[in-house]
Amino acid sequence: MNVKELIRTINHTLKSHNLFPENSRILVACSGGPDSMALLYLLQDIATHRHTTYKIGVAIVDHCIRPESKEEVLWLQHQVEELGLPFYSATFDVPRLSKEHKKSEETIGRQVRYQWLNEIAQSEGYDYISVAHHKDDQAESILAHIIRGSGLNGLTGMSVVQSEYAIPVVRPLLDVTKEDLLAYIGTKHISYCVDSTNEDVRYQRNRIRHRIIPELEAVNPAVVDAIVRLGSSVNEDVMVISDLTSRTFDKLVSIGDDEVRISRRALRQEPLAIQRRLWQRLVSTIDSDLTLTSAHQEQLLDIVNTGEKKTFTIKSIKVIAQCDTIKVYCKH
Amino acid sequence: MNVKELIRTINHTLKSHNLFPENSRILVACSGGPDSMALLYLLQDIATHRHTTYKIGVAIVDHCIRPESKEEVLWLQHQVEELGLPFYSATFDVPRLSKEHKKSEETIGRQVRYQWLNEIAQSEGYDYISVAHHKDDQAESILAHIIRGSGLNGLTGMSVVQSEYAIPVVRPLLDVTKEDLLAYIGTKHISYCVDSTNEDVRYQRNRIRHRIIPELEAVNPAVVDAIVRLGSSVNEDVMVISDLTSRTFDKLVSIGDDEVRISRRALRQEPLAIQRRLWQRLVSTIDSDLTLTSAHQEQLLDIVNTGEKKTFTIKSIKVIAQCDTIKVYCKH
Repeated sequence: MNVKELIRTINHTLKSHNLFPENSRILVACSGGPDSMALLYLLQDIATHRHTTYKIGVAIVDHCIRPESKEEVLWLQHQVEELGLPFYSATFDVPRLSKEHKKSEETIGRQVRYQWLNEIAQSEGYDYISVAHHKDDQAESILAHIIRGSGLNGLTGMSVVQSEYAIPVVRPLLDVTKEDLLAYIGTKHISYCVDSTNEDVRYQRNRIRHRIIPELEAVNPAVVDAIVRLGSSVNEDVMVISDLTSRTFDKLVSIGDDEVRISRRALRQEPLAIQRRLWQRLVSTIDSDLTLTSAHQEQLLDIVNTGEKKTFTIKSIKVIAQCDTIKVYCKH
Repeated sequence: MNVKELIRTINHTLKSHNLFPENSRILVACSGGPDSMALLYLLQDIATHRHTTYKIGVAIVDHCIRPESKEEVLWLQHQVEELGLPFYSATFDVPRLSKEHKKSEETIGRQVRYQWLNEIAQSEGYDYISVAHHKDDQAESILAHIIRGSGLNGLTGMSVVQSEYAIPVVRPLLDVTKEDLLAYIGTKHISYCVDSTNEDVRYQRNRIRHRIIPELEAVNPAVVDAIVRLGSSVNEDVMVISDLTSRTFDKLVSIGDDEVRISRRALRQEPLAIQRRLWQRLVSTIDSDLTLTSAHQEQLLDIVNTGEKKTFTIKSIKVIAQCDTIKVYCKH
């Protein structure tokens, strides 16, 4: 893909989601690596292509995982100042936080990063946060879900716009490949940092990238496209099923002051796929952090199918099934 | 898994599908390899476990792909005669058929094999055909679909009962692993043939087995279980979406003597996932062999979204969109 095609493809992705209107203020999350450096320059190209200007700022997080990260922040600051753009940085001791919160460095790193980006975007008046995930990242992310074990929802991949926080996170590069971005970087002579852990296959993501994808490509050279296409088709399917779940939820679930009720008989009429999702949605109304494992789901599906009187707890919730009614409470 | 657990697991699989009632007559499709030899003996163990007897016959197809296949047929015939069971064999020149029909040896081999098994089962009075696909085969099959490119339907994997032909094909071993079967074979001192092409990674299936699965297991040692679980959860989801598609089809599609009609306006109200499947179902009523590619789907979705007057053909069918109505004909 040459530069023109690249810009046209990204522009199409953005347009089909009505993203980045005139004079948008965009905070670019940048690591100094090739993907996010390409994003930084491409957004400016997109503005030119659209005969507008964007107010672009650059934000970097030092995760304190690699010894060179501090230097990279300084390198990026210099680059961004040369471009005359606002620069923001923060340092989080992710290895320490990982131990404290008993979460992987990847998970906790992502959490603090997005939270901080959101705070900066809000306080500095940006409309969007933009990140550099591309098509290969998308395929790797879907594959990671398949490998680790996932239901349908894990197969949808990352979305172009994500509105989990107050400021939407936008991924303009999801339709272009790493190869396209490297070609762009080369053509434009853009410099970037190389992450020394990129080749280290002890990291799951790198193992997927450097070992698994090449093996899959030996069977189908277009496997990245195949996986990404699967993701978007699954996305459409998930929308249908979620919608059906919502309607069933509204029809069957009664939410009281401190309990939620549902009829076994009514629930039994619903297909298993809907029952499972309905239980997840039901327990989430009581404890939004509670994710049901498949073992929990089986336990709940079981009490729907029997008429038994039964009381049990799942993490923070208590379930009481008696006659036709199942009541769910907060345990505390 | 010891022998007792193995038999209990298989029995559970069969029971939950109401399979193999008393005195069932079962035709075992056997290659002489470890999986199908294990199946042959396990079915007799299951009969004993259930205090019944099954009338078991053994059928083998020589696909003429490997030089040793003829000898293996004779070897199996000898084994089966020793057991005092009926034996059936057929020879198909699959390499020649593959060239003639321009289909892969795998595809055409499967076609002629299942067709012949069905004929034998019908003429010899068997109630079921049984094949030896196990949990690892299931994971490999789902992975193959992911790698080659597939929508949701390809992710469901093989089913325990398949009723494509007149005689149902049953897979009793889908909940047990290759390892379980090899352990059983070892314990029972059952002899078997070794397929010389098993290790040849030029065959896609072998590459998935010997290269890809081990790489995935380096990330998650329980990846086979994860993939098989994904398959069955997707199965439930597909049932919901298929059911919704059927209901939408009945509501929106009018089938005339030589045309099928649908309203653009009505179709536009439906989610994309349903629109795609509805189109597939619609064209299948005209040509049951026609499978829409995603490019065809996009073309059809496009004419739903525009109000344009348009006429075009897709393989054997002709599509005419005018005002609100889209008519689909057989081209011939």
